[in-house]
Formats: sequence, structure tokens, C-alpha cells
Amino acid sequence: MLNVTVWNENRHEQKNPVVRDVYPQGIHGAIASFLKSEQVEVKTATLDEPEHGLSEDVLNQTDVLLWWGHLAHNEVSDEIVEKVKKRVLEGMGLIVLHSGHFSKIFKTLMGTTCDLKWREADERERLWVVDPSHPIVEGIGEYIELEKEEMYGEHFDIPAPDQLVMMSWFEGGEVFRSGCTYQRGKGKIFYFRPGHETYPTYHNKDIQRVITNAVQWAKPTDRAMPVYGNAKPLEEIKPKN
Amino acid sequence: MLNVTVWNENRHEQKNPVVRDVYPQGIHGAIASFLKSEQVEVKTATLDEPEHGLSEDVLNQTDVLLWWGHLAHNEVSDEIVEKVKKRVLEGMGLIVLHSGHFSKIFKTLMGTTCDLKWREADERERLWVVDPSHPIVEGIGEYIELEKEEMYGEHFDIPAPDQLVMMSWFEGGEVFRSGCTYQRGKGKIFYFRPGHETYPTYHNKDIQRVITNAVQWAKPTDRAMPVYGNAKPLEEIKPKN
Amino acid sequence: MLNVTVWNENRHEQKNPVVRDVYPQGIHGAIASFLKSEQVEVKTATLDEPEHGLSEDVLNQTDVLLWWGHLAHNEVSDEIVEKVKKRVLEGMGLIVLHSGHFSKIFKTLMGTTCDLKWREADERERLWVVDPSHPIVEGIGEYIELEKEEMYGEHFDIPAPDQLVMMSWFEGGEVFRSGCTYQRGKGKIFYFRPGHETYPTYHNKDIQRVITNAVQWAKPTDRAMPVYGNAKPLEEIKPKN
Amino acid sequence: MLNVTVWNENRHEQKNPVVRDVYPQGIHGAIASFLKSEQVEVKTATLDEPEHGLSEDVLNQTDVLLWWGHLAHNEVSDEIVEKVKKRVLEGMGLIVLHSGHFSKIFKTLMGTTCDLKWREADERERLWVVDPSHPIVEGIGEYIELEKEEMYGEHFDIPAPDQLVMMSWFEGGEVFRSGCTYQRGKGKIFYFRPGHETYPTYHNKDIQRVITNAVQWAKPTDRAMPVYGNAKPLEEIKPKN
Repeated sequence: MLNVTVWNENRHEQKNPVVRDVYPQGIHGAIASFLKSEQVEVKTATLDEPEHGLSEDVLNQTDVLLWWGHLAHNEVSDEIVEKVKKRVLEGMGLIVLHSGHFSKIFKTLMGTTCDLKWREADERERLWVVDPSHPIVEGIGEYIELEKEEMYGEHFDIPAPDQLVMMSWFEGGEVFRSGCTYQRGKGKIFYFRPGHETYPTYHNKDIQRVITNAVQWAKPTDRAMPVYGNAKPLEEIKPKN
Repeated sequence: MLNVTVWNENRHEQKNPVVRDVYPQGIHGAIASFLKSEQVEVKTATLDEPEHGLSEDVLNQTDVLLWWGHLAHNEVSDEIVEKVKKRVLEGMGLIVLHSGHFSKIFKTLMGTTCDLKWREADERERLWVVDPSHPIVEGIGEYIELEKEEMYGEHFDIPAPDQLVMMSWFEGGEVFRSGCTYQRGKGKIFYFRPGHETYPTYHNKDIQRVITNAVQWAKPTDRAMPVYGNAKPLEEIKPKN
Repeated sequence: MLNVTVWNENRHEQKNPVVRDVYPQGIHGAIASFLKSEQVEVKTATLDEPEHGLSEDVLNQTDVLLWWGHLAHNEVSDEIVEKVKKRVLEGMGLIVLHSGHFSKIFKTLMGTTCDLKWREADERERLWVVDPSHPIVEGIGEYIELEKEEMYGEHFDIPAPDQLVMMSWFEGGEVFRSGCTYQRGKGKIFYFRPGHETYPTYHNKDIQRVITNAVQWAKPTDRAMPVYGNAKPLEEIKPKN
Repeated sequence: MLNVTVWNENRHEQKNPVVRDVYPQGIHGAIASFLKSEQVEVKTATLDEPEHGLSEDVLNQTDVLLWWGHLAHNEVSDEIVEKVKKRVLEGMGLIVLHSGHFSKIFKTLMGTTCDLKWREADERERLWVVDPSHPIVEGIGEYIELEKEEMYGEHFDIPAPDQLVMMSWFEGGEVFRSGCTYQRGKGKIFYFRPGHETYPTYHNKDIQRVITNAVQWAKPTDRAMPVYGNAKPLEEIKPKN
């Protein structure tokens, strides 16, 4: 059994009837509902819950955490961010969605500004698969087409991904590294671009498939943490002059 | 059910009683026996069989191919190598073991000489895990220690691995990139250094675990092959002056 | 003084007046003329010269080789390709341009099919810089725009580049990894997408700047070749039981 | 003219006569003295100067910053670290030496703990070149041998380097990724392992050559910063239903 927690800021849903209309159970509810299966237990957590719904207990029991945030990145407590980071470096998978590029947790794990170009203009996005071997794109065709999405454009200020899985084409003339994997410590991270709150992106079957695959890919590797600090020699060291 | 084929040159076993003593069923037999499980069907194939045991039928039914060769790389037919390469680029996983670094199939997939330093001197090898998140090292401690192995030393003339999973320390003073992953076409490749024919390396439980993990990691991703060649536009192209 | 050789198939120029009109001195002549400087000595070589203009003397004196081919990849002799490959692995820089993706030399160095989608439709290309730190894009803005180019689309069957420097947007809806670096042996390789023979791409100042920068980036590193083969231990190896 | 600033904590030198004996002008003085040339202007800065010697003026005039710290990472002000980070992301090269792995600036740019194994035992280190094409190892042989150094061992908790240039062998049985490059924003970063304060490592000609090469490699790329934020479309976006 894999334990997944879907974290959502859950603010657009409270303020904007358009978003509520697209995601009546919230973005977290929509994602949780397609991730659930006999092998995957899914919980949700949101910003306005105590500790943002991410108590140590919850984090310790989470194998893979998904993160959607936008309006209120700064309201996420630094203390919780530190705990999430520690868990990622200890092996918990992390899947950062769309505007989560500017979340504290993503920026601190990347070490860069994670800035980009953006535009809301009901424009077409086409996500092309550039690594056809990757388990994250199992079951996906040559590209995923989304009729309307927000544009995110390069330069995207991230470290070069360990593996670049998808690249986006936008109607307005830009491109973007849309599916990026990273190893950090004992953890695996996947950034996946699409998912503006006013579009039904998380109802798209291909988008659901990518996220479902990513959860499997990001699950913890079962082994002890590395040992750090002062170390006894494993071989004899000869005296020098 | 995953279909695995273990290919072995199987010449040392015929010539050298020491090797036969360590691997009475051949290196292929030893590897097949620990890979077999309810979910993994394993066959073996050797150089001296017709088509080296790698007919199109066999290749088409193989999900992951393991390759051990040393003395007789040049006796492997170019035609079979081309077929194996085509299958890898179409998605079959490939795990290249030890002296397989100089096989035709590895050299043609890497594009480099794959040359290295080597020495047979009963020396200690210690394979350190440098990517603690990788599924290939699930269940493995900080390092694997082998009391006696052949030395392979840098510079190892390979493309920089997509992921460097393990690095070796040798008693005689050298280091080596010992666990290397590559994506090529729709296929995944893992090179794993240890396994000199006169040592019981493939009887070591940790070595067995790494190879077992690698088979799972390398299995094909279930999706259609990319389409190549002349392509109709997906968007209107405006006439230019 | 850096010694550069620009190799061109030089067949379109003989057959097609449109190409001759765009490149009266041939594509090789156009490239040679903007690469020449007080610090850079440039020679050209073409397919129909003896040994394709790439004798051992020429190769041995070449620091960086540029390669443009398209119609006649198969007429390039395997023997010359082997010599070029050897020189690249020994340190000669190689810059592969546009349809050179299907050249024997590029395919043998990459180990993959190097296949892609393509279309000739007078469409707009926009090459976006995704690695703003790279010396190859010194002096280049956020993107290079070409009013008319041939389209090359993903999936491009290459190994994941060591560094992805530029990505293309195409009017017809595709994307492409357009500026890719590779290390192979002691040599450095840059693949650069644009340059269809009927368009004045090599007269574009930004394209010239990228190629000029790439020549500097690809120049040989001045050090001895690694030593391969049997190696004496550098440290004492203890007898084992 | 390239402007280089060598930053040193400069505390061991005040406390420990052994260190003062090895580096009478301080580690910063030793490094500055071999970096200076007609083309390279070198300044030094130390922890106990106002603003640690890293005022905005100094940072703005620095092309490449070198960083040596150990005892007093926590005394470096967060504000200065933020300014250095901003400058790196804007293009200033950064070379982090030895125990600088635990500096605030390195940890915040890497996003990981940067933890490792260590031991002070007068043991031999041998740094093997694994990327023979890299300009950072120009003029360097197959390896650099240091008779006595502090050991740093894997697992080293860093992101996988963009380019792994050198790997260390240690007498006591460990290995380490010793020469690592990273691109972050518009800046280039090089981590170089050796340099324990009680050994004459920075007097070694090969070590000096690597650092001198790294300064050239890390120098800023001369181009405008990418533009981030809301972006007008470059192409017409069609109305959707």
C-alpha cells in the first residue's frame, strides 16, 4: 500500500466560482479521486488546516506528497517547509504541480528563483514527450494537447533536470520544460507544469495518467539513510613522514 | 510476467576448470537462477547456439536482456548485434555486465571506445552508492564489498551516464564508475561492473539484489513508438512573403 | 591560432539554383567566411574531393570540424568516418549542423537512430535559450527568430544531451532540442539544428554568433590522452586467503 | 581583465600555528598569489572585515568568487549570503573549496544538506580525471596525488553534478565526487574537494592549475539577464469557444 498526500492551497476554490465550478471538491479532491486505487491510499491536506494539514505524523506516513499552491506561498510556514524538505531528503517523493514552481518547498530544494514567463490567454498547449523510455509517460502518446491553458515560458530558472521528460509548445510562441525529474538526497522530485485553476486540466485523462505514473516513480526506495560525519577507516592507513 | 533473457558467451566455462567450479551451470545459469520468480520468466542464450540463441522470436519476446561476454566479442555476428540494438531502441531493457563493456552491442550503443584500465590481482573492491534514491540500490547498504575482484579503472571511455548510481574503490589505488544508467531511444540500459569469471561475484547476495532491481528498472515502458519522418502541421502556417 | 575545417557535402549547391543563389560560395564558404579571424584559421573540405577533403593530415591539423550533409550521407566512406570518429574521441571538436543529424559520423557517435519529424513549409522557428549561463549563447538574446525554416520535431532520437542549450518552437505546432552538447572521449560535440539549404540561415548574425561561440567552446583541451589497458597497482595489494 | 575575489574565513590561520606555518599569508593569500596574472586581477576578502569584505560594490565588480570556510559558517550573515546568491544567479562564477561544502552559500544553492563522511588521518588521496575533455583539467595528468589529506567520503549529499570532472580515491577505503560543475541561473559553480588547512594542498602545482582553469571556466557569459513575469504573446492566439 502506497500512502499519498495531496496538498492544496485551496484558496482559489473559496474565492472564485469559476474554479469551484471546475473543481467542486477542490483541486486536491479532484487529484485524490483519480489517484485512489486498491494499492494507493490517498489523503488530502490544505493550507488552512492546523499545521497546513502536514503534521509530523502525516509527513512520516506519506510516501509521496503532491503540491499545488499559487496565491499564498508566503503563508506557508517556514517550519513546515523545513519539515517537508527534511522528509524529501530522507526519501519521500514530491510532485510539484503548475504554480507550485514558486512554492517555498520547490525553491528551497532547487536553489534557484524558479522564475518564468507567464500569460493567461486561453491558449493551446502541446506537451511533447522527449524521453520515450520514461515510466512517467507510460500509456501516453507522442504529445498531450490541452485546448486552453495558462502559458509558462522559458527561461525557467531551474537547475537542469536530471531527466527532461516533456517539453511544451504554446500557441503564443513560447516553449517550456514541462516534465522534469530531480534526485535530491534520498528523495525523488517531479515537476509537472499544467494545471491552471480555471481550466479542467486535472480532468484530462492523459494528465491524470502522467500524475499517476509519477506517484509510482517517486515512491521511496527502501534502504537505510546514508551515514554522515566522522568515519573510521575501512583500510589500514600507513604512517607518513 | 516479465520475460528476461540472460546471454552469456559461455567460453571460459568450457576452457577453465576454475570458472566451471565457481559456476557449474555457467554464469548464465547462475544469473538465471537468482532472477527467476513467480513474476519473472528467465531464459538463457549463449554464443555457440544458432544465431547465438538470439533469434528474432527470442528477441521480440524479451523484455530485458542481460549480457556477459569477454573472450569472443568479435565472434558475435554484426547482424545479431544490429537486431539487439534495434530492439533496445524500441524499448527492450539491456543490462551489460562486467567485461561486456567491450561487447559490440555496448560499444555501438555508447558511441565511444568503452576502454578502461584493468588488472587481475585478487584485490578488494568496494562499490559505494552515490545515488541513494535510485530503485536499483533498493535493499543495498552504503557499499558492497567484494574481497577479490578484477580491477577496472578510470578513465572509462563512456558517455557521462544519465545517472551514476555506484562508484568503485579498488585496493590498488583506482576508482571506477561502476553502476551507470542510460536512456537510448525507447530503451533503458544499465552497466554494472563486477563479475570476473574466476570469482564468485554472482553468488553475492548484494550483487544479486542489484541485478534483480536493475531488471525491474529496465523493463519496457508500455507506449507506442514515436513516429518519425515527414509530418503534417498541427497548426496553420501563415504564408510568408 | 585555432584551426577549423568546415566540411560540406556541397551537392545542393551544384543542383539547385535557389541554393546557389543563397550561398554563392557554398554553405561551407558562407560559414568559413564568418568564422575567419586573426585567431581562427579556416579551411573547407567537400564530399567530392579526394578522401572527401579529410585526409589524415587535414584531420590531424584540425582543432574543430564543422559538418553539413544531407543528400549523400551514404556516399561518405566508412573509413573516413572512422578516422573522424577517432579524432573526435582524441579531442577534436565537432559541430554538427542541421541535416547532419543523419550523417554517419553523428549517428555512430550518438549510438541512436538520430531520427526526427520534419517538414518543409516556410514556417517560423524561434530558438529559446534554456541555459543562460552557457558560453555558446554569449551575445545572444532570449531567443533567435528565423522567419522561414524547415521544421524538425520531437521525438528526436538522441541521447539526452549533457547540456541542453536551446529549444525550438515551430509555427506548425512542434518543439525540438536545437542546441545540444555532448562529451565523447576527449572530444566535445555540439549539435545545432537550423540551416536548411534554401534559406539564408547562415547569413543570420545570431546564428553566426552561436556557431562562432561553439567553435571556441569545442576546442581541444590540452592534455595527454588517458592510458588504457593493463595497469600496475599504485598501492600495495595484500595477499588474500 | 577578469576580476576575481578570494574569500576566506581566515580563522584557522589566527588560531593554529601549524596552519599559519603552511599559509603565512592565509589560505586566501596563497590562492590569490597563484591566480594573479596580467589578465586576472585578484582581491581577497575575509569573514572579520565589515560585511565580510563582500559589500555590494565588491560583489558587483567580481566576475568569479572563490570560497573557503570551515569553523564559522554560521557567522556569515544571511543577508550577505543572499547577496552572493543573487550575484551567482545573475552570472558571477563561484568556486567552492573543500570545507566550503557546508557553507551557507553552497547549501542554499544546492538545496540539499551537502553532508558527507570525513576523517583526519594523514591519508593519501588520488583525484582521478573522469571527464578528459573538460577545460578544468587542461594540463592535468590522469590523476593528482596528494600524500596527506583529510578524507571526504560518499555519500556526498549534493544534486547529481551537471558534469562530474574528478573522483577521489582515499587510502582508508572511500571514494568521493571531487570535481563537480553546476549551472544555476546565469551563473556557473565548481566544487573542488581538496584543501584541508593543515596540509600544503594549495601549494601543489596541479591543484593550482585546476583552480586557475576553473576560474576561466566559471567566468560570466556576456548576455542580458532573461526577462521574467507576464509576457505578451509573440504569435496570434485564436479565440476558443
